[in-house]
Amino acid sequence: MEKSQNIFDNDAFFEGYSRLRQGENYNDLLEQPAMRELTQDVAGLDVLDIGCGWGGNCAAFSDAGARSVLGIDISVKMLSRARRENSRPNVEYRLMDMCELGELEGGYNLVYSSLAFHYARDFQRLMADISRLLLPGGTLLFSQEHPVVTATEGLQGHFILNDRGEPAYYAFSDYFKSGLRVSEWFVEGVEDHHRTMGEIVTSVARAGLSIDTLCEPAPSEEAIRRLPALRKELIKPTFLIVRAVKSAV
Amino acid sequence: MEKSQNIFDNDAFFEGYSRLRQGENYNDLLEQPAMRELTQDVAGLDVLDIGCGWGGNCAAFSDAGARSVLGIDISVKMLSRARRENSRPNVEYRLMDMCELGELEGGYNLVYSSLAFHYARDFQRLMADISRLLLPGGTLLFSQEHPVVTATEGLQGHFILNDRGEPAYYAFSDYFKSGLRVSEWFVEGVEDHHRTMGEIVTSVARAGLSIDTLCEPAPSEEAIRRLPALRKELIKPTFLIVRAVKSAV
Repeated sequence: MEKSQNIFDNDAFFEGYSRLRQGENYNDLLEQPAMRELTQDVAGLDVLDIGCGWGGNCAAFSDAGARSVLGIDISVKMLSRARRENSRPNVEYRLMDMCELGELEGGYNLVYSSLAFHYARDFQRLMADISRLLLPGGTLLFSQEHPVVTATEGLQGHFILNDRGEPAYYAFSDYFKSGLRVSEWFVEGVEDHHRTMGEIVTSVARAGLSIDTLCEPAPSEEAIRRLPALRKELIKPTFLIVRAVKSAV
Repeated sequence: MEKSQNIFDNDAFFEGYSRLRQGENYNDLLEQPAMRELTQDVAGLDVLDIGCGWGGNCAAFSDAGARSVLGIDISVKMLSRARRENSRPNVEYRLMDMCELGELEGGYNLVYSSLAFHYARDFQRLMADISRLLLPGGTLLFSQEHPVVTATEGLQGHFILNDRGEPAYYAFSDYFKSGLRVSEWFVEGVEDHHRTMGEIVTSVARAGLSIDTLCEPAPSEEAIRRLPALRKELIKPTFLIVRAVKSAV
């Protein structure tokens, strides 16, 4: 199976992305607060973090009492920073693409993934792999870019300004053309995979995972105060978060 | 509880709507084919159709072998046409708002609703009522306007044309302002209720209904040939269809 694009080991991309993540950003103020609110008590649990990046969430799971945490990522650069900054005795970091989950043994109580699944080429297979890795009653919690945002070819979705220069509408297209979206984000040729909301939700359900929550986080007034650019994210969804439970049969 | 708006008994609205539905339209070519594909074999089943309109689907369920069909609608005009054109021995038509489902006894195998739930004021309560009315293992299948379409205040979402005058983008706003949307559709003051995808899906799940399919029907080439205006519906979702099963516990 063809692996995911490893853009994070591109020097220019890694540097740009690292700079972006230094200040307060969309992840910190919009996606992560919603993910934290939807994360169960992990004390005593075995956790798999898919696309763990530099390991901030793996360390947090460990600190919150998880029994074991396996963080996988496709990027050597990300994992070397994870091992340097977020090492814990019960956290293992492993270089692995999410299309290689078939190599793992199962038995996880929680499979967690923050903003990685829009890079997956084969979402149905990803859901089947995760369902196999979860214990009965175990939880999948993932976030990804919202389908309305990934829809437009070249990721040319954009805000339309009103007479006062304020974002008034969000314009998108190509919603039903599922597949690769190539765009420029720090470097040329970053690859996303667009799927409709229908494809995503139905793939989760058909893998035997019962959806408990679908969340499109909206920026809070406090978040907008800290990062005024977030105000425009009140007019359209930005991220999609899904929580689903493997049936206990 | 405040009832839904009864716009269908407005003479001008009813006439405009009836004219719209005479030719081949979005319902016939986009929503109904997807709904039919997702409707189980109804032979021997007890079916409730919420917002049955003039009863076309109730008659079809009866003709396909349903044991009983109850069609409810808020509109006297719709129901008198239903009784005139789609009468069957095992189909009952009843004047009832969907906020009054608490008055019904349960025991349905299928609760069906085509393009009515965007008129519901209280979606969580609607889902709770339906869950109570369904037998264990019973199915809810409903369609409604897509949240991307109901989002914009005044329903001012619109297509943006390219240089050749063809729809290239769809522009929307106000996604996170859940609530009433008042617009003009044949008459002034038609009331829709916007809810985010997250609110809809989570309300279904929290009512004890396990989502099996989420479908955003895209127009087929054949449908576009018969109604060329449908081509623009390839760039954005138009309808939302959800199928969910009451857990058999």
